[in-house]
Amino acid sequence: MTKQELFENIKRKESFLCVGLDTDINKIPEHILNNSDDPIFDFNVQIVKATADLCVAYKPNLAFYESIGLAGWDALERTVDYIRAEYPDQFIIADAKRGDIGNTSAMYARSFFGNMDFDAVTVAPYMGEDSVTPFLTYENKWVILLALTSNKGAFDFQLMKDADSSDRLFEKVLKKSQSWGTAENMMYVVGATKAEMLTEIRSIVPEHFLLVPGVGAQGGSLAEVAEYGLNDQCGLLVNSSRQIIYASSDSDFKDAAHDEARKLQAEMSDILKNRGLI
Amino acid sequence: MTKQELFENIKRKESFLCVGLDTDINKIPEHILNNSDDPIFDFNVQIVKATADLCVAYKPNLAFYESIGLAGWDALERTVDYIRAEYPDQFIIADAKRGDIGNTSAMYARSFFGNMDFDAVTVAPYMGEDSVTPFLTYENKWVILLALTSNKGAFDFQLMKDADSSDRLFEKVLKKSQSWGTAENMMYVVGATKAEMLTEIRSIVPEHFLLVPGVGAQGGSLAEVAEYGLNDQCGLLVNSSRQIIYASSDSDFKDAAHDEARKLQAEMSDILKNRGLI
Repeated sequence: MTKQELFENIKRKESFLCVGLDTDINKIPEHILNNSDDPIFDFNVQIVKATADLCVAYKPNLAFYESIGLAGWDALERTVDYIRAEYPDQFIIADAKRGDIGNTSAMYARSFFGNMDFDAVTVAPYMGEDSVTPFLTYENKWVILLALTSNKGAFDFQLMKDADSSDRLFEKVLKKSQSWGTAENMMYVVGATKAEMLTEIRSIVPEHFLLVPGVGAQGGSLAEVAEYGLNDQCGLLVNSSRQIIYASSDSDFKDAAHDEARKLQAEMSDILKNRGLI
Repeated sequence: MTKQELFENIKRKESFLCVGLDTDINKIPEHILNNSDDPIFDFNVQIVKATADLCVAYKPNLAFYESIGLAGWDALERTVDYIRAEYPDQFIIADAKRGDIGNTSAMYARSFFGNMDFDAVTVAPYMGEDSVTPFLTYENKWVILLALTSNKGAFDFQLMKDADSSDRLFEKVLKKSQSWGTAENMMYVVGATKAEMLTEIRSIVPEHFLLVPGVGAQGGSLAEVAEYGLNDQCGLLVNSSRQIIYASSDSDFKDAAHDEARKLQAEMSDILKNRGLI
């Protein structure tokens, strides 16, 4: 998907919501678990059906699928195939946090962009340029590079200040990686719990999309993220996972997920209107 | 496996060799590819049989398995089960470079230590403490944290100097992470191409094992690594992948792999003797 296509989808749906498919076998409603050969896939299908008109992206979190082995990997592949076939306007993100030496990153890229048909993969920057660029060789596919994450551990290294440039590590990641790709094939992860830093981040990467986790369960505020993070092509994908997919653990989980997604979409619609983007 | 058990295996085998199972479906000898339902697993079994007496660890590189989807994941699980059953003295490393927010890292830990029976997993430090500690809750299982990697991109961020402490990023990772685990459940990745920096690294982590990739295809020197990196419990696992497993692409690949592993083991045996460790 191109950046322009993504922006068109955002305008049409009046939403920049990404639904995180952190599907945990231990949290799936009992009636699905008892009546399905592939409960993770069936749960995902129901969630996607209940939310597809309200969001522009889905983000399966690879760890949740890998944690149950072959069955999980199979459910992941089926989920991506299902979304691609039924909702071709959705941007599908492999939240995988990969990154390794060049020949190995090339293998990961083959996994997510060749074998499976994801639009984007999250990548960790620690190993530098040659760990990232192999993901950028696929047309209209995206790297979403970790910059400033939403967790407590973000403070351990990401805010370290460079003695030479005075840039903090996440700023150095933003600056250096701009020579690896463009705003047409790279995005950055910026946690919603660090919304006040979005102004600085926007001054470094004014054109890039930002993937923002941490709204909801992790405590970030959508209004703040939008205030400091929006650009003239929206430039934001805001993710919510647990708040939506586990809104209810009973047979009404689809309606509950729809309602939670609807709340966020309505708020996003107002934000986009107030900014004159729609 | 405990640190003491690993050291005993090293002494008994006169080797601190780790064989990297970067098994690429496109590089498997034709006679295996044509006569097997699971050529990756069958290739791995032959490589393990040919090298098990010469090494103390195996390191499947997850990317190579993931890149072919379900069949790859299946071959990976079978490979780990095979090594665990037939060669219980081998230390098995998931080279996965994982790391995410706490609840997600906990899922990855379940994947490698619960669902599969790896001894260790490589983890990227960018997201800090809560991305690493969930892996440390399994008894006698290990985190191998990236410190200074063997690739060109290592220079992009890992050598950045902290304005406050003057530590470079990799030194900060070494220092900070020592409060997360101990030398009994953490190791560090230090590339062989940076052997001259092992003296500084040893001054920070004198007791920890270091996993050293980059000998062979990537150009690192075993003698240099040993000179600067050995400690009184050996403290090194030196990995070689392509040089061993692709020593020949013909039907003699087992013998060729054995011979390459033998060369490294013989060199390691001399090194261990010269240091008085055996």
